[in-house]
Amino acid sequence: MSAASPAPAIRSVDEHLEDVLAAVHPLDPIELQLPDAQGCVLVEDVTVPVALPPFDNSSMDGYAVRIADVTGASEEFPAVLTVIGDVAAGSEGLPTVGPGEAARIMTGAPLPPGAEAVVPVEWTDGGTGGGAATTMRAASAAPEGATGEVRVHRPVEARAHVRARGSDVQAGDLALEAGTVLGPAQIGLLAAIGRGTVRVRPRPRVVVLSTGSELVQPGEELGPGQIYDSNSFALAAAARDAGAIAYRVGAVTDDADTLRATIEDQLVRADLLVTTGGVSVGAYDVVKEALSSVGDADEPGGGVEFHKLAMQPGKPQGFGSIGPDHTPLLALPGNPVSSYVSFELFVRPAIRALMGLKDLHRPRVRAVLTADKPLSSPAGKRQFLRGTYDAEAGSVTPVGGAGSHLIAALAHADALLVVPEDTTVVEPGSDVEVMLLG
Amino acid sequence: MSAASPAPAIRSVDEHLEDVLAAVHPLDPIELQLPDAQGCVLVEDVTVPVALPPFDNSSMDGYAVRIADVTGASEEFPAVLTVIGDVAAGSEGLPTVGPGEAARIMTGAPLPPGAEAVVPVEWTDGGTGGGAATTMRAASAAPEGATGEVRVHRPVEARAHVRARGSDVQAGDLALEAGTVLGPAQIGLLAAIGRGTVRVRPRPRVVVLSTGSELVQPGEELGPGQIYDSNSFALAAAARDAGAIAYRVGAVTDDADTLRATIEDQLVRADLLVTTGGVSVGAYDVVKEALSSVGDADEPGGGVEFHKLAMQPGKPQGFGSIGPDHTPLLALPGNPVSSYVSFELFVRPAIRALMGLKDLHRPRVRAVLTADKPLSSPAGKRQFLRGTYDAEAGSVTPVGGAGSHLIAALAHADALLVVPEDTTVVEPGSDVEVMLLG
Repeated sequence: MSAASPAPAIRSVDEHLEDVLAAVHPLDPIELQLPDAQGCVLVEDVTVPVALPPFDNSSMDGYAVRIADVTGASEEFPAVLTVIGDVAAGSEGLPTVGPGEAARIMTGAPLPPGAEAVVPVEWTDGGTGGGAATTMRAASAAPEGATGEVRVHRPVEARAHVRARGSDVQAGDLALEAGTVLGPAQIGLLAAIGRGTVRVRPRPRVVVLSTGSELVQPGEELGPGQIYDSNSFALAAAARDAGAIAYRVGAVTDDADTLRATIEDQLVRADLLVTTGGVSVGAYDVVKEALSSVGDADEPGGGVEFHKLAMQPGKPQGFGSIGPDHTPLLALPGNPVSSYVSFELFVRPAIRALMGLKDLHRPRVRAVLTADKPLSSPAGKRQFLRGTYDAEAGSVTPVGGAGSHLIAALAHADALLVVPEDTTVVEPGSDVEVMLLG
Repeated sequence: MSAASPAPAIRSVDEHLEDVLAAVHPLDPIELQLPDAQGCVLVEDVTVPVALPPFDNSSMDGYAVRIADVTGASEEFPAVLTVIGDVAAGSEGLPTVGPGEAARIMTGAPLPPGAEAVVPVEWTDGGTGGGAATTMRAASAAPEGATGEVRVHRPVEARAHVRARGSDVQAGDLALEAGTVLGPAQIGLLAAIGRGTVRVRPRPRVVVLSTGSELVQPGEELGPGQIYDSNSFALAAAARDAGAIAYRVGAVTDDADTLRATIEDQLVRADLLVTTGGVSVGAYDVVKEALSSVGDADEPGGGVEFHKLAMQPGKPQGFGSIGPDHTPLLALPGNPVSSYVSFELFVRPAIRALMGLKDLHRPRVRAVLTADKPLSSPAGKRQFLRGTYDAEAGSVTPVGGAGSHLIAALAHADALLVVPEDTTVVEPGSDVEVMLLG
């Protein structure tokens, strides 16, 4: 009879995390349009197909000239050149610049044949016959600028103001290596080398559902004995924050058949399932009831195990895989702070593992405890207290108490203080481990 | 004649940023569904409407009892109580616990009338008549657990394992103050106190368009003199990263009418417009041509001014407002690295200002320059070099050169080195300012 069965072994936080991470593998890669790949991990080494820039081009608005024609030019004795036309960026058909000639050229436009350098417009009269120019007039308003004569006031060296083909990257260069996370600059580089799509691990789809017959949707009226569902909102937001596509399924009532049916329904869009509540030792702990009763590992709950963890908050936890695709499922406790802390410790690393990220964990630092009185912590349990971290002072201050229901304090915390299993008292001024919630 | 007009005054980076931030105001707040408010700034002080928890409830799965009935109870001499029923979380109609009676109670369920404390199931026989229980059997499988007798092995104090009404927050308490950024924990708290919607500043809609007749969509074939459009991809991604809803309009050809029409089209969905290219002194600089020629401040371009900034890269910049709603527009230079650096310096703070965030800027730190040779920087210009920052060593190493076209280097940088206007040489080992790109 299970009510009298021997107490199951207590499991450490590290054992549970190890178990989760051993079972969660990076998602299979897919080819995504570049904008959709933002935040994803590249799975291929991307090499440069064509040199960048792909052709010699001007780095200034000015005149493409031959060196010999401007040797010794000065404001007093300008070189007078015949303007043979405009070379704008993207213009087709380049004029050839012969002796005594110049082509008016725009930034990014290809250096035309015959030309050896570019003279910036500010070093010329801009074709106006006046003093030094500061700008060109728009070609649409003043088409005559593409013809006539230009006076060049300074000589230039060969290749001056010319960006050489391949000066940024050469064809065959490694642009980005597999494992790179695609942020804006990496997306810019991929676009620049002409990649319209890219092979990445997709964002995991995480289905979050809370359980509890007492739960009411925020915005509705509370009846006696009812509370608002906050877990599905907080954890869907946290999953999104971790990089996932989160689907929030509202609260499911404490009925095993309903829960099983809901989970089966959701499997089609889940790479990871997260439930809250119903994992402890009560007679209405529906997640445990629904998922520990299935013998076939291919059925929902077939592979889900429930444990007591040596931690506070967050003692009761379930983990396993469900359904024909063995979709991983984490069953977190129902208390809002317990579920949030559990998410940070186990679900967030799982999401990041599914994404193929190398860096799975929140940063941890050491800090000096600032507190009025010593903190007490239960022996044999790793305690996670909410706190605020002051990077400049290198200190951390607890917010709220140790009770696992202090959701208000959680909303004012930016860190978790980690008190090890063998520590029962932490004196103010002690050095403690802090997990930064970012 | 503009080609011979006096050179416009050079503007400092700080002047330009000040100008941008003076013109960009937080967006008007709207009421959003809680999940849609993630990452947004709250504009109201939110007070707690009902105490949390809203009623005295059990923090354990166990038995709700009267203190006197379990005084002196031990495993050898248990208190034997009559189980009068189950109180599950969310169950309606509470039984009254009389002398000699106990109600089986679940975590989160309301403490029934008459009961003064909760005895955890592990301190009882769980109603089995055997030794200490470790769990309850599911009520669906073993309904007899809600009846019969329970042996209690330990006494409890009044209110033991009871979470008092209001022990987390009291009605009228300030839950979150205006200005709070809504992350997962804040969304959890708002849900917990019953807020289905919340008043926040919305994410700004940022329209990004690149200009240039030479630009080709990545994935297509390059013709002679053409390059791939990367700016619209990189900056839309960067805008999204900064918190905006980004709309990427492909590359617009260098034609003033087309550009004006495109901008007018886009105004309807823009809280901020960002263009790249066409802002310098060339004859085909379409953004400048299209937007500086309009006299009426309510017409597109009516309020856009173009400047030369004392910075490298990113010298030519435009800023102003356009259209009937005076939508802010930032016209960035077309070079990919110039536009990216300009985005970081001017657009990202503008997006964050539109969101109503207080903290507009990237973190800046001091670091020691690690380099083979001194860096040179033009006099009178603030230079922004790409680099990698090593937090542990407190050092920064330049990536690529000073050329503004090194988009490959940008994709491997995580920081910008800031070289002040009056510095022309930075020796290795010097202390430099670093802007972390995060």
